[in-house]
Amino acid sequence: MKQLEQMYEGKAKKVYATDDPNLVIVDYKDDATAFNGLKKGTIAGKGAINNRMTNYLMKQLEEQGIPTHFVKEIDDRKTVVKKVDIIPLEVIIRNRAAGSFSKRLGIPEGSDLRCSTLEFSYKDDDLGDPLINSYMAKAIGAATQEEIDVITDYAFRVNDLLKSFFKGIGIELIDFKLEFGKTADGTIVLADEISPDTCRYWDMETGEHLDKDRFRRDLGDPEGAYKEVFARMGFTEAD
Amino acid sequence: MKQLEQMYEGKAKKVYATDDPNLVIVDYKDDATAFNGLKKGTIAGKGAINNRMTNYLMKQLEEQGIPTHFVKEIDDRKTVVKKVDIIPLEVIIRNRAAGSFSKRLGIPEGSDLRCSTLEFSYKDDDLGDPLINSYMAKAIGAATQEEIDVITDYAFRVNDLLKSFFKGIGIELIDFKLEFGKTADGTIVLADEISPDTCRYWDMETGEHLDKDRFRRDLGDPEGAYKEVFARMGFTEAD
Repeated sequence: MKQLEQMYEGKAKKVYATDDPNLVIVDYKDDATAFNGLKKGTIAGKGAINNRMTNYLMKQLEEQGIPTHFVKEIDDRKTVVKKVDIIPLEVIIRNRAAGSFSKRLGIPEGSDLRCSTLEFSYKDDDLGDPLINSYMAKAIGAATQEEIDVITDYAFRVNDLLKSFFKGIGIELIDFKLEFGKTADGTIVLADEISPDTCRYWDMETGEHLDKDRFRRDLGDPEGAYKEVFARMGFTEAD
Repeated sequence: MKQLEQMYEGKAKKVYATDDPNLVIVDYKDDATAFNGLKKGTIAGKGAINNRMTNYLMKQLEEQGIPTHFVKEIDDRKTVVKKVDIIPLEVIIRNRAAGSFSKRLGIPEGSDLRCSTLEFSYKDDDLGDPLINSYMAKAIGAATQEEIDVITDYAFRVNDLLKSFFKGIGIELIDFKLEFGKTADGTIVLADEISPDTCRYWDMETGEHLDKDRFRRDLGDPEGAYKEVFARMGFTEAD
């Protein structure tokens, strides 16, 4: 399989076509952005860490029955994935109040929730990825009821699996964002990434932020946080 | 039944206790506010029109099986209603894109929707009544799943009944806001009001706004719009 022209460059990844029309290559960058691109920076080594973490977790999820776009890791930063049409909904699962949830509802970060929540943000940078609900998603044609049912089911199952996995390495999974896509044959698969860019990880002992909030909020040493999660997952620099 | 002390004054209504602990009196004002109270004014005669329209519509809805807080009209502006604990969710149903929906999603006002939508806003003036979804409402204890199921069912049934009623008098029901409360015995009932303050009414022929948007957007003669809807509903000034 040959890498062909760049199809797309996002905030954290580039995507290349291949000579197989059903496969693309994603190439993870060290670029970090926050607040819908208003804050920009670099987290050295992030691309390689996010690529390898994502692939590891997607493989685990596949084994547990969640279809993903993952096909094959090429190298530290590059992975072959199934080509999908992204469903234009960011799916956010929360296990504890933090970030925009806390701000929107005036609830201190870290507050317990009576149940885990699922939110849809409509993927549109110009609109600031606004919160919408499933009725709104259907009304504007962003997703069908069937798609919503499938991604809701997958998202909560992913939550159960990831929560348990991260608990095992001393990390509380506070919240995370998933994206789903449809392959050429219409199968809905988990796409995008699962990394400290897209999850809030808090150390279970100290409450320390081990995720992109270190960059967003200038908490210092984001590189160290990414490396810490990477190491707890059993990876070594040399892997 | 005797009117006792004022319990509460809202933006458009005052509420008085009575000597029956399960009943209160609402007193509709002519005060008009918009944009979470930032814009203030008066629409002469609005209180009486909204009181009588609301009572008329609530009686119709009761006959169709929707429990409401309505008990008895006292005079032009005052009505006895059941005392309820308001569920802190504004329930917004939309049949066509307008207002905050259009703004949030970048969709021109008046656009068709693929289906009617339901939204919950968390009733909190300090937070600006933010949009939330049912998971969020449960997570913060604003409502239970059972309450959400009941009010969702009622809200869509109210929509069917109101759409049909207003169509009969040449008005398209674009969107509206409902509030629900729980009586002392735990019954969920429709509360608050149904009026040009809480609904968007567009003339089916001309598209003219016959609702509070005339005040919000300075379209002129809000009094005339309220009177027009009142007259089409069969009320006369002398009624």
